[in-house]
Amino acid sequence: MKYSTHPRLSNDSELFGRTRSTLIFNTLLTDKSRADIWYDETGTIREIGPDVRQKYQGEADIIIDGSGTLAIPGLVNTHTHAAMTLLRGYADDMHLQQWLSEKIWPLEAHLKGEHVYWGTKLACLEMIRSGTIALNDMYFFMKDAARAINESGIRAVLSHGIITFGDEEKFDAEMKATEELVSHIRSLNNPLICPAIGPHAPYTVPLKHLEICGEYSRNEDIILHTHLAETKQEVDDCQNTYGVTPAALLDKAGCLTHRTVAAHGCWLSEDDCSLLGERGAHIAHNPVSNMKLATGRAMPYHWLSEKKVNVGLGTDGCSSNNNLDMFEEMKTAAICQKFCRNNDTLLPAQEALSMATLCGAKALSYAGGELKSGLPADICLISLDYPGMIPMHNPVSNVVYSALGGEVDTVICNGKILMHNKFIPHEKEIMDGALSSADDLLNLAST
Amino acid sequence: MKYSTHPRLSNDSELFGRTRSTLIFNTLLTDKSRADIWYDETGTIREIGPDVRQKYQGEADIIIDGSGTLAIPGLVNTHTHAAMTLLRGYADDMHLQQWLSEKIWPLEAHLKGEHVYWGTKLACLEMIRSGTIALNDMYFFMKDAARAINESGIRAVLSHGIITFGDEEKFDAEMKATEELVSHIRSLNNPLICPAIGPHAPYTVPLKHLEICGEYSRNEDIILHTHLAETKQEVDDCQNTYGVTPAALLDKAGCLTHRTVAAHGCWLSEDDCSLLGERGAHIAHNPVSNMKLATGRAMPYHWLSEKKVNVGLGTDGCSSNNNLDMFEEMKTAAICQKFCRNNDTLLPAQEALSMATLCGAKALSYAGGELKSGLPADICLISLDYPGMIPMHNPVSNVVYSALGGEVDTVICNGKILMHNKFIPHEKEIMDGALSSADDLLNLAST
Repeated sequence: MKYSTHPRLSNDSELFGRTRSTLIFNTLLTDKSRADIWYDETGTIREIGPDVRQKYQGEADIIIDGSGTLAIPGLVNTHTHAAMTLLRGYADDMHLQQWLSEKIWPLEAHLKGEHVYWGTKLACLEMIRSGTIALNDMYFFMKDAARAINESGIRAVLSHGIITFGDEEKFDAEMKATEELVSHIRSLNNPLICPAIGPHAPYTVPLKHLEICGEYSRNEDIILHTHLAETKQEVDDCQNTYGVTPAALLDKAGCLTHRTVAAHGCWLSEDDCSLLGERGAHIAHNPVSNMKLATGRAMPYHWLSEKKVNVGLGTDGCSSNNNLDMFEEMKTAAICQKFCRNNDTLLPAQEALSMATLCGAKALSYAGGELKSGLPADICLISLDYPGMIPMHNPVSNVVYSALGGEVDTVICNGKILMHNKFIPHEKEIMDGALSSADDLLNLAST
Repeated sequence: MKYSTHPRLSNDSELFGRTRSTLIFNTLLTDKSRADIWYDETGTIREIGPDVRQKYQGEADIIIDGSGTLAIPGLVNTHTHAAMTLLRGYADDMHLQQWLSEKIWPLEAHLKGEHVYWGTKLACLEMIRSGTIALNDMYFFMKDAARAINESGIRAVLSHGIITFGDEEKFDAEMKATEELVSHIRSLNNPLICPAIGPHAPYTVPLKHLEICGEYSRNEDIILHTHLAETKQEVDDCQNTYGVTPAALLDKAGCLTHRTVAAHGCWLSEDDCSLLGERGAHIAHNPVSNMKLATGRAMPYHWLSEKKVNVGLGTDGCSSNNNLDMFEEMKTAAICQKFCRNNDTLLPAQEALSMATLCGAKALSYAGGELKSGLPADICLISLDYPGMIPMHNPVSNVVYSALGGEVDTVICNGKILMHNKFIPHEKEIMDGALSSADDLLNLAST
């Protein structure tokens, strides 16, 4: 049976159930051409262009009318703590240390797996609604996060955040959690979900433990997800303790490779950027969070570009952003760099869009982030039917500088339809579940 | 006949036609209380609180179920060039002078009244969709802008942008345009629309012309809308030419009073801020535009706060923002100040919301910007039914840091319903008209 997706069919469970051969016709591409996109039941794009419809219309199980939409690759969030959606707005506008010690940590001390499950469900919902199809997530109770991600249909790299402050017993427990996560994720047999190792940062994990993490990443061939050079304090402390910058310390520990995704990088030096470039490491840029938490310096994009470092974009967690909207992140990245470097041509719209798509896929180690034959069908259709998209002198400019994440119409990950006509199955249930879970967490913390 | 606004009635023309006595029940306020809001057929809020429904239900012509929404005052955009929506995305990521001289000015040279009419229609649509009910607009062909505004139902202060570079003939023509605008707007007899005088900036209008503008503002008792201290260059040039800062020059010209709304203010000195405070002048802060155009310095909010200067928020025009979303502007203001002053407690969420509401109304010289008995019913109901609003630990934080402008549900200006259940009458016609108009402008420019 064939489905054409008239609005009345958009909440049909058949549409969302599994990947089937699909033809999207008459969508607009960012080069202003009209195109049809055809992908097969493995979720792989087979052809994209103006004449695809005639050829494949008869073969498609699902036919989506793309008229009135602009197609871009699904967005990639290269650094977040997904379940922190439950802490959205719980504490803002405070000094960093007070915020952590008086608000965030005391609440997190009561976290259970169920909270992480519901927080991650809510995060997936929010990401899908705003066009994001992949995330790099570091948090706790990551098997529960994996359960939520697995149900959501999006891509993820998941790591248990390792914080030891030198405590051997804690390190053993964290490594055990990591090993269990790796084996659990592999047992899920979902090619969209990959495990990673997550030494939190050079200031929370000492050299000797970083070395073991680096070795583990190499041996298991998995991503190493960490925080790097977020604050000046961190750089100063590292220089005082080890006589080197945090980036150089990571390198010394064998933690700076093509498998490394390091978040923030606000206080990287030019030499650090060269080192990252030589090692093929990736940076996850989080401009909104960095601005809100007053890191005092913008990630040196000009140096990272020069040294050919791959830079993706991330929202960070909802306690410091406070949403997961990658459209907002693209715009903030582009305007923040221009502002901070006093250079109105730096980080143009096309580069911001690439950071959120192709560079993100590269950082998370999968072939994707482009609408191209042979690549996975990770597709975001943005509605053109609202004032912010009119006129359309330059589609890329509209996507980066004007679009609202909430106006995404259809989201497809690896060929599976996750949202269509802004409808996501079970949305209300997920929001209700997350709300109850946040209440439960607050109750636990207050008793 | 009474209307209860079930979704099926939301596109009923009776609902949008004129102001009638209205009861909104069971909405959430930012202090987390549940409330009903009752306003009369003059568009004035008569009561707001928990028990209003029982008292007034029988008297209301329209009853709106506010369950699942959060009520905030309608937002106020204190500086924009509304019709520049037609130039959205026409040129970005360029050096300022090249951008102006090669792209914006050549296109603007072909502007006609019809373009400004449609561009302003589109701007009003975009603003209403994202909760904005008032704007301070400076541009050309302002009678055409007034026609669009008058049809839209929102509040506006409108000025013809005066640029003379010392040319007497040009100044005479600009003053004539201003006088005609003032008398035209008065003849409209729409209390929501006020005229203003708009000397563009101290670097485009010399002292002798500024003096006349200042005098005109006093004599006519109208707002003086200008640009001030946007770039360092402007401050340096002013110092070289006049030996004083642009703010001091405005003051010397009699252009710095409680009627003054000065946009940008990025390069104000501490003394300038004191002077603005003493004169009771207002600043329109435009963080997104300032960042995108690389002004190199953030408006000194800390000094302006100290000196008790009233600061509103504005989007600037769509050629430099590129949207009119005041939610984005609130968040960017809050995070930009924290970042630039290295102070994570500066400009907390509540102040950002006040800038966009109460301070905006104060700058535009009308009593409003609060949900309070006796004030105009300028109301924005935000949907709570999407992931970014869950959980709701702190409504103000969610509004400023997480909300998406596109999720506004209902917008009411001076009691008149402009949008309900995201439906705005004639939206499609306005978008089509604006699109054609943008095409026409480009065609004119290319021939």
